[in-house]
Amino acid sequence: MSGEQYRVAVVGATGAVGNRMMEVLEERRFPVGELKPLASARSAGGKLSFAGRPVPVEELKEDSFEGVRLALFSAGAGVSRRFAPLAAQAGCVVVDNSSAFRMDPEKPLVVPEVNPDAVGRRPTIIANPNCSTIQMVVALKPLYDAAGIRRIVVTTFQAVSGTGKRAVHELESQVKDLEAGREPVVQVYPFQIAFNCLPHIGSFLEDGYTEEEMKMVNETRKIFGDPDIGVCATTVRVPVYYGHSESVTVETRRPLSPEKARELLAAAPGVTVVDDPSNLRYPTPLMAAHKDDTFVGRIRKDPSVENGLTLWVVSDNIRKGAATNAVQIAELLVERGLL
Amino acid sequence: MSGEQYRVAVVGATGAVGNRMMEVLEERRFPVGELKPLASARSAGGKLSFAGRPVPVEELKEDSFEGVRLALFSAGAGVSRRFAPLAAQAGCVVVDNSSAFRMDPEKPLVVPEVNPDAVGRRPTIIANPNCSTIQMVVALKPLYDAAGIRRIVVTTFQAVSGTGKRAVHELESQVKDLEAGREPVVQVYPFQIAFNCLPHIGSFLEDGYTEEEMKMVNETRKIFGDPDIGVCATTVRVPVYYGHSESVTVETRRPLSPEKARELLAAAPGVTVVDDPSNLRYPTPLMAAHKDDTFVGRIRKDPSVENGLTLWVVSDNIRKGAATNAVQIAELLVERGLL
Repeated sequence: MSGEQYRVAVVGATGAVGNRMMEVLEERRFPVGELKPLASARSAGGKLSFAGRPVPVEELKEDSFEGVRLALFSAGAGVSRRFAPLAAQAGCVVVDNSSAFRMDPEKPLVVPEVNPDAVGRRPTIIANPNCSTIQMVVALKPLYDAAGIRRIVVTTFQAVSGTGKRAVHELESQVKDLEAGREPVVQVYPFQIAFNCLPHIGSFLEDGYTEEEMKMVNETRKIFGDPDIGVCATTVRVPVYYGHSESVTVETRRPLSPEKARELLAAAPGVTVVDDPSNLRYPTPLMAAHKDDTFVGRIRKDPSVENGLTLWVVSDNIRKGAATNAVQIAELLVERGLL
Repeated sequence: MSGEQYRVAVVGATGAVGNRMMEVLEERRFPVGELKPLASARSAGGKLSFAGRPVPVEELKEDSFEGVRLALFSAGAGVSRRFAPLAAQAGCVVVDNSSAFRMDPEKPLVVPEVNPDAVGRRPTIIANPNCSTIQMVVALKPLYDAAGIRRIVVTTFQAVSGTGKRAVHELESQVKDLEAGREPVVQVYPFQIAFNCLPHIGSFLEDGYTEEEMKMVNETRKIFGDPDIGVCATTVRVPVYYGHSESVTVETRRPLSPEKARELLAAAPGVTVVDDPSNLRYPTPLMAAHKDDTFVGRIRKDPSVENGLTLWVVSDNIRKGAATNAVQIAELLVERGLL
């Protein structure tokens, strides 16, 4: 690294992911010269802490990006569609955590452990994949490289923090309401999430799949650069605060034993294998929360198909699923001299 | 029906399933002449209510079954292995909710909507399948009949009530502890279950699967009488009180459209189709709790494989998954003049 320091903007700095982006920049000692937290007019005006100092939250405006080198966006697809191109025009490299550009064939969709070269030579806007996709492709990358992947059947157990701070508060307050014998208030989700499971993340499409499920199909293919991977996804919201869990059943193109898969995963970047179930070692969202790695366990042969493997993949959806991956993309840009 | 009334014993009457068996016998107006709740010495001595009257809980003993025509057992495999043969010897027909006899080739394993004829002509001990299997085979039966089934990939979201009353109390008390800022007490499960997911139900076997997962493989094959069905199961405990949910992806032998599957399921006994997602109609454990049906929704084509379908199946694990299925087996015996 050059020792250079960068002026960095975080768009959506007051949100769950924006908050965490600032934390992760600090923790990982990203070379931030000046940090510029940006938010909507409604959320601007306060102060956030960065590197031990208070920094004012400014209102996001068209000219916010002058002199900024890197902007991490996490304020929804509408904001990204409007402001990311302006930031890019101002000479800023954007890492965008929204869905706005993920499937744009001209924009890279990057998980640094999986497809770092997709950043290209002159990146302007780089898309950060969806949380549920990131942890799955991190876990599948070593298996893909060793044996190819024909088909994935995945069912997710997704934490409420993926919806944002309001959803975290809704679960908390529903639990309190039920405790006190009151009818729980249902606002963020269509049904009570406390002590319930909702097979519904994102809007429903005509074929019965949700947007979230189709993200797992389309983003996985784009990240691996392999349109032939079949993916059947069912995405489910569960009453967990932090950490998405995924039951991933995969058919590789060539044989791959669970032992070999475990060995490959143990050596893979960003992966921690936790797989000694008879000694009660398996990943859970509670143990993965507030960590950066993707945790993989319950690795076993699926005897119901040729070349079948099945695994349990857990990661903090706000960290590796969003903030950490975005900061890792920024680190990759620095390493490659692209910032 | 003959109008005859039967002396009925419930073994394990003070447990979560035993309690519910008594409720279901009453609700469904099973022709109970006399009800005999049986429990261990530790739990015996109190009284339970049946049909508006208190009935004493007697200690389960070797001679408890004299004069009893039907015994519903739900007190664990050890109790069943010891006492069910004694009950049968005394001339009683046993419906056993434990795992003791499920895979015994001489004992029928019955879900009345699926394989009623398996009860045979002179049943003595009939096994009630595992909760997670029952709801899955009820949902798959019409698809199996129409198109055959080659392979099932299933991931479960299982409620704590499946573990018993102690687990229900543990989830309640962990939530209270966390609310109060206390370290939650972990006793029933190896890790905190509140706001967590544990990919661990039953003991782990050598190949990395759990007992619960292998029940879904082996019981499904036995109930359908089809040893060629491939099943890959991942069973997960979630912080839900009542109602197991299952993400079930199935490859049929012959083509079957989601529309046709929906139509067949709507006409199937014991199934309620709740499948209009764009109007927020899909099953959740909270809506299935305390009901007898198996609720099926999110029925859609799995485009990643030939003849693929995927669905979301929810049922009350203590009712259809245990007590109701046992009482339905007893009703079948009465209908067929086998009691």
